[in-house]
Amino acid sequence: MFLIDCGEGTQVQLRKHKIKFSRINHIFISHLHGDHFYGLIGLISTFMLLNRENDLHVYGPKGIKEIILLQLRASGSFTGYNLYFHELESKESEVIFEDETVIVKTIPLNHRVYTNGFLFQEKLGKRHLNVEAVAKYKIEKVYFDKIKSGGNVTLDSGEVIPNKLLSFPPDAPMSYAFCSDTLYDESIVPIIKDVDVLYHESTFLDSEQQYTEKTKHCTAKEAAKIAKLANAKNLILGHYSTRYGSIEPFKTEAETIFENVLLADDGREFEF
Amino acid sequence: MFLIDCGEGTQVQLRKHKIKFSRINHIFISHLHGDHFYGLIGLISTFMLLNRENDLHVYGPKGIKEIILLQLRASGSFTGYNLYFHELESKESEVIFEDETVIVKTIPLNHRVYTNGFLFQEKLGKRHLNVEAVAKYKIEKVYFDKIKSGGNVTLDSGEVIPNKLLSFPPDAPMSYAFCSDTLYDESIVPIIKDVDVLYHESTFLDSEQQYTEKTKHCTAKEAAKIAKLANAKNLILGHYSTRYGSIEPFKTEAETIFENVLLADDGREFEF
Repeated sequence: MFLIDCGEGTQVQLRKHKIKFSRINHIFISHLHGDHFYGLIGLISTFMLLNRENDLHVYGPKGIKEIILLQLRASGSFTGYNLYFHELESKESEVIFEDETVIVKTIPLNHRVYTNGFLFQEKLGKRHLNVEAVAKYKIEKVYFDKIKSGGNVTLDSGEVIPNKLLSFPPDAPMSYAFCSDTLYDESIVPIIKDVDVLYHESTFLDSEQQYTEKTKHCTAKEAAKIAKLANAKNLILGHYSTRYGSIEPFKTEAETIFENVLLADDGREFEF
Repeated sequence: MFLIDCGEGTQVQLRKHKIKFSRINHIFISHLHGDHFYGLIGLISTFMLLNRENDLHVYGPKGIKEIILLQLRASGSFTGYNLYFHELESKESEVIFEDETVIVKTIPLNHRVYTNGFLFQEKLGKRHLNVEAVAKYKIEKVYFDKIKSGGNVTLDSGEVIPNKLLSFPPDAPMSYAFCSDTLYDESIVPIIKDVDVLYHESTFLDSEQQYTEKTKHCTAKEAAKIAKLANAKNLILGHYSTRYGSIEPFKTEAETIFENVLLADDGREFEF
């Protein structure tokens, strides 16, 4: 399980939503502002107290390792598990994680300090077995993996059954882009092109557009423009300024530009 | 207002109990374990966001300044207010703060890392005006400060009215000792002698006494022994291990040794 950003109190939220701590093996930190980062040291310490044994990988801006290690040293603590830091400093998008099922790339953002978004791309999975066809040709179980990987099957009779008849195409791989804190910046569009789900910050409404340049944040309208330019399928908004009493206007504003808008909120879950 | 120790989520608790952030000017950190310290950087950042102007003084173990400044630098932040660190490294009790009304001393504790408790001693205040006597002798307002400070008053007639007739003794000054995390250690007794209120950790019950040496914590019974030896007037217990379902047994156990036992708990307030 991936955790993206870790503000103060993240532990409390994880407990509240019954997320098993041991499932978190990779933590991605977009930038070193407190609301995205101050909960990390506490989480790392709690993993220790829970006698974690799995490796933990932390991806974040250069400097993150020194900050965490300094605090661990000050508390005379060491982690019983392996703690790996992957410090980021590239200003270009780069691959920072890859396994059999997913690849993770950075999305360089334009904020007051060095900041990355993260793009999670599922890899194309295996084909699905056509259970009826397999039964019809009386194909043995030992061939199932081969079929799922796209191979044809030669029957005892010598007849070759093409894979297409024995399997269905794999699920379309999903992709998710997380853009934490950023000024409106079209340069990210090619990186997140055709993404299934785009989380994009929208600190302000258009009526406060004048604050975006100084604070390096953007408006709901601007987030929607990015979603539209990138041909995203869905847009999730979040990181609203506390100046607003309600978050509904963010949805209304973004919908003037882009259709599928959802609002992130404490503990809200989305399925795609 | 003094804040002692600052674990993760302290801000949330302060808000919940409607403590005005701007009233906190002195923060005392006993040691650099997370549950006593990880909320400090967030609080300092929040003070920034609230446009604090008052000086803030932080007292804590050597190393605390580097940890906080490193994080402020990483987030490209600077405080609009003056932030002063008073780093502690003495193994003897020392005076670390003093103004007209209060004096604060460290209480060296015996824990896994360098740790101090803190002793807050009110200074003897001014005497109280005997309003009836003052009226009887028709004494002018300009003399009131002199009377409160213990001076006699000479009437126009030349008669000297002794202070005792014009005022009552000042309130007895209160003292409060906070002993955060420590192994049972009688060497603190002379420092906290006759204290009005002693907060002393009691992580374990006597039945788990075998864990105290390794973890450098103590039991409710041991906390009560310290209170008794120090001739404290009241004992507040806290820092209970989460292994116990209820905190009431801590009170019961301590009361076998010492009479006036109170149990600290989230948000609980005490008046003396």
